[in-house]
Amino acid sequence: MFDVKTMDEVFDILNENFQFCGNQAEEIDIFLSNGRILAEDIISNEDIPGFDRSMVDGFAVFSSDTFGAQDSVPAQLLLTEEIKMGQKPDFVLAKGQASPIPTGGALPMGADAVVMVEYSENYNDGFIYLNKSQSPGNNVIFRGDDCKKGNKILSKYKLIRPQEIGALAAIGVSKINVFKKLKIGIISTGDEIVDISDDSFGGSKIRDVNSYALFSAINDLGCEAKRYGIIKDEFDFLYEAALKAYKECDMVLISGGSSVGERDHTHKVIEEINKQENADYVHNGIFEKNVYEGVDSPGILVSGIAVKPGKPTIIGKVCGKAIIGLPGHPVSAFMIFKTVVTPLIRKLTLQENSKEILTDAVMKSNYPSNHGREEFLPVDLETENGVIYAKPIFGKSGLITTLINAKGYVHIKRGKEGLSQNEHVKVTVFY
Amino acid sequence: MFDVKTMDEVFDILNENFQFCGNQAEEIDIFLSNGRILAEDIISNEDIPGFDRSMVDGFAVFSSDTFGAQDSVPAQLLLTEEIKMGQKPDFVLAKGQASPIPTGGALPMGADAVVMVEYSENYNDGFIYLNKSQSPGNNVIFRGDDCKKGNKILSKYKLIRPQEIGALAAIGVSKINVFKKLKIGIISTGDEIVDISDDSFGGSKIRDVNSYALFSAINDLGCEAKRYGIIKDEFDFLYEAALKAYKECDMVLISGGSSVGERDHTHKVIEEINKQENADYVHNGIFEKNVYEGVDSPGILVSGIAVKPGKPTIIGKVCGKAIIGLPGHPVSAFMIFKTVVTPLIRKLTLQENSKEILTDAVMKSNYPSNHGREEFLPVDLETENGVIYAKPIFGKSGLITTLINAKGYVHIKRGKEGLSQNEHVKVTVFY
Repeated sequence: MFDVKTMDEVFDILNENFQFCGNQAEEIDIFLSNGRILAEDIISNEDIPGFDRSMVDGFAVFSSDTFGAQDSVPAQLLLTEEIKMGQKPDFVLAKGQASPIPTGGALPMGADAVVMVEYSENYNDGFIYLNKSQSPGNNVIFRGDDCKKGNKILSKYKLIRPQEIGALAAIGVSKINVFKKLKIGIISTGDEIVDISDDSFGGSKIRDVNSYALFSAINDLGCEAKRYGIIKDEFDFLYEAALKAYKECDMVLISGGSSVGERDHTHKVIEEINKQENADYVHNGIFEKNVYEGVDSPGILVSGIAVKPGKPTIIGKVCGKAIIGLPGHPVSAFMIFKTVVTPLIRKLTLQENSKEILTDAVMKSNYPSNHGREEFLPVDLETENGVIYAKPIFGKSGLITTLINAKGYVHIKRGKEGLSQNEHVKVTVFY
Repeated sequence: MFDVKTMDEVFDILNENFQFCGNQAEEIDIFLSNGRILAEDIISNEDIPGFDRSMVDGFAVFSSDTFGAQDSVPAQLLLTEEIKMGQKPDFVLAKGQASPIPTGGALPMGADAVVMVEYSENYNDGFIYLNKSQSPGNNVIFRGDDCKKGNKILSKYKLIRPQEIGALAAIGVSKINVFKKLKIGIISTGDEIVDISDDSFGGSKIRDVNSYALFSAINDLGCEAKRYGIIKDEFDFLYEAALKAYKECDMVLISGGSSVGERDHTHKVIEEINKQENADYVHNGIFEKNVYEGVDSPGILVSGIAVKPGKPTIIGKVCGKAIIGLPGHPVSAFMIFKTVVTPLIRKLTLQENSKEILTDAVMKSNYPSNHGREEFLPVDLETENGVIYAKPIFGKSGLITTLINAKGYVHIKRGKEGLSQNEHVKVTVFY
């Protein structure tokens, strides 16, 4: 049988067993690419900017014409044609000439610097008097300065943010290949669970909470959630639903199983799918093990975690895909989603460094905890006189209270006997 | 004329002039409500749970029948009907009886506690022997313990997260009223700007970057972005586009205007819309000032900020709506969006406490800065031997380099003469 694992052991197991394996890409419009992972290198087909460009309002000149210019000895240059924004100058600047140019305007052939309008005097005598010496390149962005044709500007596996979308627009790329979204199937189990739309509610039923909370939390991580309904607590039904979800998705979350019988079903379902999947590759006569090269299929990896809440969590791996049994109680299911499933999803989607927000806080009251196991304590956050206090959320039932009032949680490590009032803690903030 | 404002002055002006004014609500499915702001109080129409519920696998009992029970003197109770998950017991428990019950099962009438199965012995003699004394209520969640019928479980203005969606599902609420998304219009100006789809690119044109980056950044904040195209740098065209955007949206962002002429146009356009809007309410014969009660219309609030990058930023307010002129340079526009527009949007959408991520870092190199103005320095972040280093992104052009390589920025305060190598800094992280 399986030992209950500590959180550290669970993270080690997840790290060893799962990695980014985005092998399917799709082409999408850059407008829709925010938060996606690039599935190709992006090479610029152009020089950016595509022309020598002024950084200031001023006068395009031969820099050598300004050498030594100063207030008392301005350079006197012949005013020539004005450059219009967005138009390519159709003349060549000659030595001794200066051409008025706006910020962003294209330098005429010949010019290699721009003198800011602040350093000029115009006496309407056909000349412009420039009292600042400029070196070649001053106030100019040369063609290709930002990015040269053929340069790789974005690498495969890069997370696309608004900034990257802007850069893609700059080089004229309107469609890109990104990895498909991770698709995650959600199954709720339990004979007492009914959907919100189900009129049979009442008596001794409770409503399905996990499908709703998990659906939104999965979307928040940039993945696609798919619900597979509420399944009666019988092995055959759960097997059928889980197999369908496993075939169609990249990961399956089965929530429910607060009773011993349900936990056993989830366990057995994972083992059975694993057996079946691997058997398929044998009983065709050939053992097609190579199909799964590097993607092993150990079945159950974790059966029980020494953590509160969330002890009955089950983690399996079948042909590279995670099948996870979450506790049935909504608070437990949600906390395990945040603390175990979320890091796994981030790993699988290359978002490992994103969006973990920690804040320092001071415990508002004592919190006893001597379970010899780790604990994730949901807390509310309150600011008083500039100090952020973490207030444990008590209550034996606490489904609604906990979910709604928790602004985050404190991770109480193993061996620590609770938290004292005024103790400094780190709170992982829900966002 | 207007003085250039410091960032502190700008924030004061924004705080005085803008507040949440969500007055239009819409009903949506809870599945779509993640990140939205609740426009109504939510009252539970039910007790949650709706029945007395066991928290463990065990035996439903009269607690008084177990008083004094221990290993050596177990309570001997008559085993009676087993309770099935999700079914309401149709019998009344009598004193001296115990009914097997699963976690989540409904207690029979009479029972007031549950003894865990771990504390029982079954010798198949028709009795169950319980060796633990239980107080009334032990291992039971009573009807309404979590939430009573008539209780307010969510208040108007609450941000909906996956947790809240779960709680709504728990009480059977599938549709809620939320405030409409803030709608933000985006206009790009400049004769040299062309859209990515425009074949006239080349020569002395550059592509529209801001519409793309801002569109995604606005969506990231849970708002609705609408593009109003690329507008020629002439007052009449800009006025027409800005007026349309102002009428249709809750906020307008006009990017462009790196040249003096364009800046002036944005400035004049805001003043003209303000004049026109207020004139409308006079020339109908009646001065309908009360329409705008508490929502004044000062026109231009800020014209120029003492910050690098982003000096040419213009902020206006017309009948309560912000019209903001952003710099044309994509890096400047993006930084001002992050540092000025984002806090304003968060204020307008009641998300003030969300999603600002600061990290400690060590400067990798010196960075000179003696402008007498504040500076937002884009930096890359690198970890070496466990130390996070902030690496300034140099380069005079830097559009693509900066946008792509910046992981965040350091806010250099006024009067500070740059940053030294190995100096400790706070980096606001882009996410």
